[in-house]
Amino acid sequence: MTVLISDPEVAAALDAATTVDAMRHALIAAYEGRLVAPPRAAAPLGGGRMVLTAGHLRGEWYGYRSYDTFGHPGSEQVVVLHDGRTGAVRAVAVGEELGSRRTGAIGGAAVDALARPDAATLGVIGAGRMAWAQVWAAAAVRPLREVTVHSRSVPRREAFAARVRAELGVPARAVDTVRGATRDRDVVVLATTSTTPLLTAADVSPGTHVNAVGFKQCDRAEFGTDLLDAAAVLACDSPEQAGAYVPPMLAAQPPYAARLCDLGAVLAGTAPGRTDADQISVFCSVGLAGTEVFLLDRLVSVLAPAA
Amino acid sequence: MTVLISDPEVAAALDAATTVDAMRHALIAAYEGRLVAPPRAAAPLGGGRMVLTAGHLRGEWYGYRSYDTFGHPGSEQVVVLHDGRTGAVRAVAVGEELGSRRTGAIGGAAVDALARPDAATLGVIGAGRMAWAQVWAAAAVRPLREVTVHSRSVPRREAFAARVRAELGVPARAVDTVRGATRDRDVVVLATTSTTPLLTAADVSPGTHVNAVGFKQCDRAEFGTDLLDAAAVLACDSPEQAGAYVPPMLAAQPPYAARLCDLGAVLAGTAPGRTDADQISVFCSVGLAGTEVFLLDRLVSVLAPAA
Repeated sequence: MTVLISDPEVAAALDAATTVDAMRHALIAAYEGRLVAPPRAAAPLGGGRMVLTAGHLRGEWYGYRSYDTFGHPGSEQVVVLHDGRTGAVRAVAVGEELGSRRTGAIGGAAVDALARPDAATLGVIGAGRMAWAQVWAAAAVRPLREVTVHSRSVPRREAFAARVRAELGVPARAVDTVRGATRDRDVVVLATTSTTPLLTAADVSPGTHVNAVGFKQCDRAEFGTDLLDAAAVLACDSPEQAGAYVPPMLAAQPPYAARLCDLGAVLAGTAPGRTDADQISVFCSVGLAGTEVFLLDRLVSVLAPAA
Repeated sequence: MTVLISDPEVAAALDAATTVDAMRHALIAAYEGRLVAPPRAAAPLGGGRMVLTAGHLRGEWYGYRSYDTFGHPGSEQVVVLHDGRTGAVRAVAVGEELGSRRTGAIGGAAVDALARPDAATLGVIGAGRMAWAQVWAAAAVRPLREVTVHSRSVPRREAFAARVRAELGVPARAVDTVRGATRDRDVVVLATTSTTPLLTAADVSPGTHVNAVGFKQCDRAEFGTDLLDAAAVLACDSPEQAGAYVPPMLAAQPPYAARLCDLGAVLAGTAPGRTDADQISVFCSVGLAGTEVFLLDRLVSVLAPAA
């Protein structure tokens, strides 16, 4: 029997620690070749495309996420989990929660792997769903002492800070400049829809780890290339997907490509990651394919543990 | 709220007349350009592919069917229906019934458009799910007087004939040769998994309409090319998809391609179809994309009529 899962059920069942743990295992599985995650496939439908990102955890399951590009504000994503032995559909999730929690938790795994062990302050640029999921996940891997948030909208950044205080129990304040939110922070999250640089190397202190979640392409990036120049550690969650961006992803181009490492390799212990407390590290989030299905499989286990 | 629909619900709600009517409208909508149905998209997953066939009925809905090629006997298909105005997922169907009924009903629309108005006898080669769906749909568009069935397996062909008698109330008998099933029949259905010709022109009488549902490609076809030579009318449900087959579809190659017409054009009244009672007509079923979503939209209307 197929289980249909909606956003409230995802929100109730997937706490940040569980979700980050699942994504850590997914990243290692992809690095080790057990999680097959090909580039996306799409069908043009006139006015929009139907897009499929698929995954296959060998011996366990296969499935996909679908989304569309029609631009409807209420558009819902679908994640489908097939049993890898029988082909039966075990679960279908409809909505946004699984996707945003998955992206947040990949960021949480990056913070856990790359930020200083004693990281305790976080600055976030952006106040939307993706920004929230990043802070939600980061709070599960480091005991945060303070969150600062900046976004262009005063009501939205105030509401974001209030939500951090209420839901995560972390002191938080809204600030009126990017630099005010990011200077002297151990972790910086950049999660905007900007296509021009909002953050430069000068906005970030030595020892900071940065999660870049929004646009990160040539001539379409929310940060300046000087941030990549300043970074001693550059990582992403899928070198294969990073190399397939159109226009190209900044960190996957020279001179950065040679230094871009797989977060999965850092998690597996075969790439060094941060080696000094004063280094700047930057994680470029691309959204490893198959991770929504990986998370749905974990969610199904949480909802109905195997006998 | 998303509705999850399983095979028993599809079977209970979609009778043959309703399903053929939906497919008739889908074929006309595709011919008129209102139903956008691009070629399939696929993601390779190591050992199998995840395949997406998508559709968009302008102003109404968009969605897709997914299936995989891992070859699991219990593999289930998924059909997803999005509201075209909001993007919300209205329904998800999991299983096999929607897909086989849709293919059967496209065949039923072909029989209705191309068989003689007085057609009353049907011969079917094959005794599987696809063969059944064709006979089920044909019985809704012509008052059948007798069905003859041949397949290699005696128990399966006997069971098929018994099912026709029991569920369709039509006299039916299993026969031990192809020609015994197809000679002097008004309608012939070819629905096997054979990659070599089982049916030739000599097995078919003047005035017969043939639905070819199985393999129909160069060097991989369940019928001989002399059947196409003998046909005065050649149709398919998607000339675009017919042209995209690999290896090429026989009827989409010279000398047949110039004569291959769109069943949607016949249904819309802009292509002639059969013009003489003695003509042989052949319908090559390719499975117009988007028709599963079209049928799911119809099914949702049947289950929960709009207020």
